Amino acid sequence: MTLDFTHDPSRRCTVASAHAPGCDFTLQNLPFGVFRRRGTQEPFRGGVAIGDQVICLAQAHALGCFEGLAAEAASAAGEPTLNRFLSLGPAAWRALRHALFRLLDADVRDPRGAALLEALVPLADIENTVPVTIGDFSDFYTSIHHAENGGKLRTPPAGLAPNFQWMPVAYHGRSSSVGVSGQQVRRPWGQVRVPDAEAPQLLPCAQLDYELEMGAVVGQGNPQGDAVPLAKAMDHVFGLTLLNDWSARDVQLWEMTPLGPFLAKNFATTISPWIVTLDALAPFTTAWQRPPDHPQPLDYLESADNRAHGAFDVALEVWLEPQGRAASRLSRTNFRHQYWTLAQMVTHHTVGGCNLQVGDLIGTGTISGPTPPEAGSLIELSKRGREPVALVNSDEERGFLQDGDSVILRGWCEAAGRARVGFGESKGTVLPARRT
Amino acid sequence: MTLDFTHDPSRRCTVASAHAPGCDFTLQNLPFGVFRRRGTQEPFRGGVAIGDQVICLAQAHALGCFEGLAAEAASAAGEPTLNRFLSLGPAAWRALRHALFRLLDADVRDPRGAALLEALVPLADIENTVPVTIGDFSDFYTSIHHAENGGKLRTPPAGLAPNFQWMPVAYHGRSSSVGVSGQQVRRPWGQVRVPDAEAPQLLPCAQLDYELEMGAVVGQGNPQGDAVPLAKAMDHVFGLTLLNDWSARDVQLWEMTPLGPFLAKNFATTISPWIVTLDALAPFTTAWQRPPDHPQPLDYLESADNRAHGAFDVALEVWLEPQGRAASRLSRTNFRHQYWTLAQMVTHHTVGGCNLQVGDLIGTGTISGPTPPEAGSLIELSKRGREPVALVNSDEERGFLQDGDSVILRGWCEAAGRARVGFGESKGTVLPARRT
Repeated sequence: MTLDFTHDPSRRCTVASAHAPGCDFTLQNLPFGVFRRRGTQEPFRGGVAIGDQVICLAQAHALGCFEGLAAEAASAAGEPTLNRFLSLGPAAWRALRHALFRLLDADVRDPRGAALLEALVPLADIENTVPVTIGDFSDFYTSIHHAENGGKLRTPPAGLAPNFQWMPVAYHGRSSSVGVSGQQVRRPWGQVRVPDAEAPQLLPCAQLDYELEMGAVVGQGNPQGDAVPLAKAMDHVFGLTLLNDWSARDVQLWEMTPLGPFLAKNFATTISPWIVTLDALAPFTTAWQRPPDHPQPLDYLESADNRAHGAFDVALEVWLEPQGRAASRLSRTNFRHQYWTLAQMVTHHTVGGCNLQVGDLIGTGTISGPTPPEAGSLIELSKRGREPVALVNSDEERGFLQDGDSVILRGWCEAAGRARVGFGESKGTVLPARRT
Repeated sequence: MTLDFTHDPSRRCTVASAHAPGCDFTLQNLPFGVFRRRGTQEPFRGGVAIGDQVICLAQAHALGCFEGLAAEAASAAGEPTLNRFLSLGPAAWRALRHALFRLLDADVRDPRGAALLEALVPLADIENTVPVTIGDFSDFYTSIHHAENGGKLRTPPAGLAPNFQWMPVAYHGRSSSVGVSGQQVRRPWGQVRVPDAEAPQLLPCAQLDYELEMGAVVGQGNPQGDAVPLAKAMDHVFGLTLLNDWSARDVQLWEMTPLGPFLAKNFATTISPWIVTLDALAPFTTAWQRPPDHPQPLDYLESADNRAHGAFDVALEVWLEPQGRAASRLSRTNFRHQYWTLAQMVTHHTVGGCNLQVGDLIGTGTISGPTPPEAGSLIELSKRGREPVALVNSDEERGFLQDGDSVILRGWCEAAGRARVGFGESKGTVLPARRT
């Protein structure tokens, strides 16, 4: 990914709030989502977040802000999902990004820039929905620290699975239950077997957990039977979101042998509303390193470019907000610690001929950093509930999630001499289990 | 499910081929699919198979064959997928079924019956496509014989997983790669580790296999967070197809711990084109029995009605057709042998709050009967290739599938005093692996 004028941190935005300290949605970001005015029955439409506002792309298009490919892209993005916009391909995504950047650049003084400001809606007044119609959701397992932490919690403790260091392991998840930040997540019921009990029971989950992940939105598919080589893998990704893979640990433990998690994961998944494009993230790629004493990747998962730029430097945080109380930060880590890169995930996913489609969602798996406080799930932080985590803003502690708890994921990129590029947040709230 | 006039086996059809011996698509069947004239670029449209013909529902509707709810249903079924037709609900499905039955009944002599015959297209002249836009595809594992056969093939041999007798185990599959009979399946590449080798290799699959399954098409969804009780479970199913869950056994062995199969299964799945409705299958439900010395189901998976009518008596066969040779039958079994019923699968799937959606596909898992020749996969029949199966119509044998092989699944219901109700076939052909 090459840098262009949209990465110039010296450009000033006509939307002043884009310059507020800590603002995620800077001029250099321009993430895409789908929204409507809160409390209305308006159709959902595509928009781009800027400062504390969102640009309604359909309205901006109607105001004549765009021409050529950017106009075609803005028109497609006016639909209730971004799928058709994505299917126009990278040239169209980039044309719209470039057009928006120029129109929002305070020094450009294009008269259409004034028109664009008429298409702003305050973020405070909107509600979002899942920005794409997700065909398939697949979820990887690519943090070696998460995998090792999980192994230590097993009885008896287990090491890494033999395949972990050779492939980005993954399974298929549930697309129907993916929701957007603000999702209300009903505590699931499920079969649970108490150790040494003769029979399992159907009970409300007693070990409800979150998983800090990122989600990649597929922008270009591949034909069934073909594979996407590593050098082309990132061309198939439109952008990234935060992703909370809610998990029922007690259900998972009992159900997952031999076919993997099912009900333990398929009741809800919460993504952040704004898809931060790979173009916006281009300044924040970083080297991917495999410890020299670990097996080096097979050829199809290896390239110099992936070594040099395969990882993303995204700071990540998890916060827990008990009902009616202030939020406490549970952990902080970084996406760059993953054992496999996103490009390797895409290439491995397709090496057998599986066809990705526009709008598919690919989860990275839990992102846990190298030290214990950097763990991306509560089961790791609390040692399966045996060492509950103290909440700093209250006298409470948590082994697992309680009803009323909200889990908030945050993520952003910052580097010297660069404008901040942030993801906003994924927030989901636990509702009590249904009565029966 | 109650029987009505559409189950009367004495009624004669105006389409004479519906009375041919062994015809799957009798007057009492009326399965739904999506088709167009072969070799054209016409839009795909919904149709109902009858004898050796298909009724183009859009054309029949335009000819004024239907009124009221049946007309609304036929209009919706004229679209390129059946999703909107399904979303109209069971009353609409049934109204169209009843209207078609009356119009095709040779003794009714409704003038619209003559018009309906103008909307017939020979099956020999059409091509089908996947009849619904599949949101999520989930696949169960509900044959105890398949599970036991698989365990014996492991090194060392393994017994049933502890959860098998307590829940219908399942995992999420891949919806993007589901195709319809006639699918050309490229042999996948994948990581394989030879036993005792230090490192895995990326190779074309050397242990390509099929799995004989049935697929249930969801006709009504449930809200996220709700569960579907057993008594209501079958209301959510529109009908059944045959389903071949192609499997790369060598890839599966190496990748599936701990999260289950991924690339081993997601390269292709082949369903039969015609969805046989639960209404058509109503005469063929049968008792579901749990051996008395096995654990009896937890309450949410138990009902008198499920015991009395939960299973379906569907005869099933697998045939293998080497390129340019006649097909050999590999096995024959029956859907009634499954350890869990379809209703139990739907109820378990939703007990944690997972939302099913119209058009979702639910696989039953491999259907293997109680004796070795009734196994639903080649790995079982050939003991992981150690005892290749002789093909009766050639001098060849098979441990696993070879390039050019076609796998054909067939299924039908027959009972004394009942019209035959058949599924047609799911046929898929193995193409050589791509060069690199």
